[in-house]
Amino acid sequence: MICIIMGSESDLKIAEKGVNILKEFGVDFEVRVASAHRTPELVEDIVKNSDAKIFITIAGLAAHLPGVVAALTTKPVIAVPVESKLDGIDALLSCVQMPPGIPTATVGIDRGDNAAILAIEMLAISNEELSKKLDEFREKQRKKVIKSDETVRNLFS
Amino acid sequence: MICIIMGSESDLKIAEKGVNILKEFGVDFEVRVASAHRTPELVEDIVKNSDAKIFITIAGLAAHLPGVVAALTTKPVIAVPVESKLDGIDALLSCVQMPPGIPTATVGIDRGDNAAILAIEMLAISNEELSKKLDEFREKQRKKVIKSDETVRNLFS
Amino acid sequence: MICIIMGSESDLKIAEKGVNILKEFGVDFEVRVASAHRTPELVEDIVKNSDAKIFITIAGLAAHLPGVVAALTTKPVIAVPVESKLDGIDALLSCVQMPPGIPTATVGIDRGDNAAILAIEMLAISNEELSKKLDEFREKQRKKVIKSDETVRNLFS
Amino acid sequence: MICIIMGSESDLKIAEKGVNILKEFGVDFEVRVASAHRTPELVEDIVKNSDAKIFITIAGLAAHLPGVVAALTTKPVIAVPVESKLDGIDALLSCVQMPPGIPTATVGIDRGDNAAILAIEMLAISNEELSKKLDEFREKQRKKVIKSDETVRNLFS
Amino acid sequence: MICIIMGSESDLKIAEKGVNILKEFGVDFEVRVASAHRTPELVEDIVKNSDAKIFITIAGLAAHLPGVVAALTTKPVIAVPVESKLDGIDALLSCVQMPPGIPTATVGIDRGDNAAILAIEMLAISNEELSKKLDEFREKQRKKVIKSDETVRNLFS
Amino acid sequence: MICIIMGSESDLKIAEKGVNILKEFGVDFEVRVASAHRTPELVEDIVKNSDAKIFITIAGLAAHLPGVVAALTTKPVIAVPVESKLDGIDALLSCVQMPPGIPTATVGIDRGDNAAILAIEMLAISNEELSKKLDEFREKQRKKVIKSDETVRNLFS
Amino acid sequence: MICIIMGSESDLKIAEKGVNILKEFGVDFEVRVASAHRTPELVEDIVKNSDAKIFITIAGLAAHLPGVVAALTTKPVIAVPVESKLDGIDALLSCVQMPPGIPTATVGIDRGDNAAILAIEMLAISNEELSKKLDEFREKQRKKVIKSDETVRNLFS
Amino acid sequence: MICIIMGSESDLKIAEKGVNILKEFGVDFEVRVASAHRTPELVEDIVKNSDAKIFITIAGLAAHLPGVVAALTTKPVIAVPVESKLDGIDALLSCVQMPPGIPTATVGIDRGDNAAILAIEMLAISNEELSKKLDEFREKQRKKVIKSDETVRNLFS
Repeated sequence: MICIIMGSESDLKIAEKGVNILKEFGVDFEVRVASAHRTPELVEDIVKNSDAKIFITIAGLAAHLPGVVAALTTKPVIAVPVESKLDGIDALLSCVQMPPGIPTATVGIDRGDNAAILAIEMLAISNEELSKKLDEFREKQRKKVIKSDETVRNLFS
Repeated sequence: MICIIMGSESDLKIAEKGVNILKEFGVDFEVRVASAHRTPELVEDIVKNSDAKIFITIAGLAAHLPGVVAALTTKPVIAVPVESKLDGIDALLSCVQMPPGIPTATVGIDRGDNAAILAIEMLAISNEELSKKLDEFREKQRKKVIKSDETVRNLFS
Repeated sequence: MICIIMGSESDLKIAEKGVNILKEFGVDFEVRVASAHRTPELVEDIVKNSDAKIFITIAGLAAHLPGVVAALTTKPVIAVPVESKLDGIDALLSCVQMPPGIPTATVGIDRGDNAAILAIEMLAISNEELSKKLDEFREKQRKKVIKSDETVRNLFS
Repeated sequence: MICIIMGSESDLKIAEKGVNILKEFGVDFEVRVASAHRTPELVEDIVKNSDAKIFITIAGLAAHLPGVVAALTTKPVIAVPVESKLDGIDALLSCVQMPPGIPTATVGIDRGDNAAILAIEMLAISNEELSKKLDEFREKQRKKVIKSDETVRNLFS
Repeated sequence: MICIIMGSESDLKIAEKGVNILKEFGVDFEVRVASAHRTPELVEDIVKNSDAKIFITIAGLAAHLPGVVAALTTKPVIAVPVESKLDGIDALLSCVQMPPGIPTATVGIDRGDNAAILAIEMLAISNEELSKKLDEFREKQRKKVIKSDETVRNLFS
Repeated sequence: MICIIMGSESDLKIAEKGVNILKEFGVDFEVRVASAHRTPELVEDIVKNSDAKIFITIAGLAAHLPGVVAALTTKPVIAVPVESKLDGIDALLSCVQMPPGIPTATVGIDRGDNAAILAIEMLAISNEELSKKLDEFREKQRKKVIKSDETVRNLFS
Repeated sequence: MICIIMGSESDLKIAEKGVNILKEFGVDFEVRVASAHRTPELVEDIVKNSDAKIFITIAGLAAHLPGVVAALTTKPVIAVPVESKLDGIDALLSCVQMPPGIPTATVGIDRGDNAAILAIEMLAISNEELSKKLDEFREKQRKKVIKSDETVRNLFS
Repeated sequence: MICIIMGSESDLKIAEKGVNILKEFGVDFEVRVASAHRTPELVEDIVKNSDAKIFITIAGLAAHLPGVVAALTTKPVIAVPVESKLDGIDALLSCVQMPPGIPTATVGIDRGDNAAILAIEMLAISNEELSKKLDEFREKQRKKVIKSDETVRNLFS
């Protein structure tokens, strides 16, 4: 099970990118809203009581949610920085520049989809079925590019 | 009483800049080390049990300590971003770009001294003696600049 | 009393975010327009003659207003950097990187609301009623997040 | 088994931070040098033939190694950006801003230690013994901070 | 012959800027889509089997395509960073900050046209006809500016 | 006489901000289009043959025009960086970071108006009438701010 | 006469670069220390009572001195941003991003020498002798480069 | 023949990185010093009279030399941005962000070696011997990495 926590309801469309991936892979998940600053006790409650094996945290600005979650668990915490001001560089640096001992696994700005794929890759370490699905997913991506390649080649010949 | 919390013992020399100011003004203070990521419960313990009227928080990198403290109290939280990587811009953005509702009062990079002065200015709102001392402190600063001005004028005439 | 000074009438909507908060808390305030560069004497007149206990200054670009106000008073000066060019990083650095001795309390880019909350937190140091209202305000914020959490949980289950 | 690949022998001291952690946890590992640009076929050879469950990639400048490894496997790829020019922001952005479908798990600049801890957290999803060791590691970190706190408190009282 | 490779079909309009230039100069070209991350083997196939004398690579975000192509050939590789996040500074740094030994020739953000002109300049080293066409192209550019100059002078006199 | 040179006709609206100021002050001017890269000889022709006492140069991207003009004259060269990519930070740095011996006088991004005022200030060093007009211009600015102040004060009382 | 004002005695070596130039050209000058934040009244006193035709202002961090001086006079104000934190980008943006109506003439980071040359160029608008000296100065610079060119050519032939 | 032009004698050690490469490949070259700002006519003289097929330009700060050279020739112009202030980001943006029609081929900050390799790659388009040497050079690089790989593998096993 994967637990997606976003810092604010406004991050919903970033979360949905991840949700779509998790559904496609048939991986259980829950989606929560909990602010590291407005509801620290809710964050603690979710992290301490969740059955999740991995947390995906989504936050913008001074994005403290990933760090706050990482402080409460030794399970992997994936961080998705959200663009809201300064093109998202504020959120990116707040997510990734963690001190020694408490890592987060940061993905690209607004990349809720990649957070989900990374989570599945982690689960697939001990789940061969998921591992196969990942290969198939890659194959689909590959085919899409190859199709694009054909379209574009024809366009210019 | 002012409570200075630094995220790591390595921030000591930034804290000391503040301590020197607080001593000069005769303001009570305590200095603590508590990491938002390694010891969230210690942070909570300090914030919830402190008699402090104001918190000064000092942290580098993905500087979450100010935000974590601000989430636990409605007392003013002053944030001092510390230079460690990226010239301190990572810590600055992590300190200052707080979401609506939970402000921190951010001062310049490595400016432990200014954090202390700002704290005293806050106390001085309802403490005329401190207010006078602040005026005297300014006057001393002013005189130092005027002396520099004389030195330099003579140097070039 | 809180004095909000903005550098230009174009900053009005940022100021209004703060005004709404101050009204909600029943804190007296005045709103002024005074440019550090076009009307330095007006800035001086406002700062020297105001009954305000705290100044909130709002400015973009090379945002000198906070520093100019801080030079004229030892009362706390809160700085709100405004986005106008370079995503607001110019205003942010102009506000926050103050020299030793003259701090400003800088909040996030365009965060007029957080400036007001920070001002109220400062007043609440010696005003228990305001302190209670801050707790209630937090509680309201908390409940809003919890409601968001419920909405989103249902959305995905 | 964890495979650490660094882009150049000059990244050795960053790799060693990770090696020390992996040794402390008793996790098997191998350390390789392979440049995405100078030896793409060596990278491919390592990734395709390794028994590793997770790859830790370490690279500076236009840090393409993490992306090149991620393109060759669906196993988790952890990226450690190395400071060499531009304070490491070039390597950080080259590591983290991956396109949809091919994530890397990026940690902070020069944080070889956190890469190792993150890898162990991933293994611990299906390895209770490692999970316990992670808790103990956290506890040790916690105690170190608490000791720092005592030292500093005494220093100022 | 020039081979234009873009990392994704979405970079088409940047590629077209280059195509228009190549057509104007009567230089043979092919346009391909191949992702360094999703289809590394397609990239390899294109680079190893192409008759191209020069590669133009177009990519955004963590733009690894130029580096991956440069690793596979000693023919000149021109890199066009594409704006998609962070105003394109992520793609620019990922393109240009190549390690010693494996250069790319990076042009400005979104400058597919300049990539084509640079490619033609390279071909013109041993092709006098192209060299003359470049001079004529410059002359046309020059005349356009001179016409603009006349228009604007008249506008204000 | 002031000579305004813009690098491209697309900078016209920035130039017009300056033109409006110069007209208001009754200062003679000419407006030219000349690209440092496409028409270096036109730039040289303009600079060497102009009666201008001051040059205002307007350019975006790798804004070389100010430096190229400054290399051709010892008259003051004012540089206006134009926003086109990277929020204009590329143009700003290309304008301002001149080597020892060859200064440009750089104003803010897109500030054609300030370039004109700065030029007038330079002329006013030896022109008392212009000096008086500058004082009047300031007074008008001052009054506008004071009027804004009144409007806003009434708005909130 | 040129008045050089630096924000702090620590900027002395930047000022001296300018002083050396002014001496070489035989231009009268005075050097003052006055902080916009610690001694605003001293800044006002200097600006209002100086015989200077041009002000050179030197400041680091949130470099408000140029703007504060520009607010007090319509004489040209040259700004020298000083590197102290963030590589000087904070000072640069604080100097250059002035609002409409109040320009500063900003030169490169730490370029006290270029500030002096720019001031002389302004004076030379109505002073033919200085204009000639500027030409001679350029000629000397030119010869130095030509000598370097000879040295280096010989080195490699 | 390759012509290396550096903007100042202080860039010599960057130029030497390129010279070493060119000597290793047996490619003729000359090394010149010519400042775009201090000696524009020397730059013009070199570019117009050189037998060079390719220009390598090396410059820091507001690095206009590459653009100035590119304006004078339609031969390929390679730009090497030099770190001197702001970590070299000023030089990088001044080199790479060229307007449509006048490209430069920009390599990484301080990468005089890569500039030379890129120049050789351009020559090799019509020179099979150089093409072979490039392959051998790559092979040497490859072997060095493989040796590093062996060293490091042994170090940790």
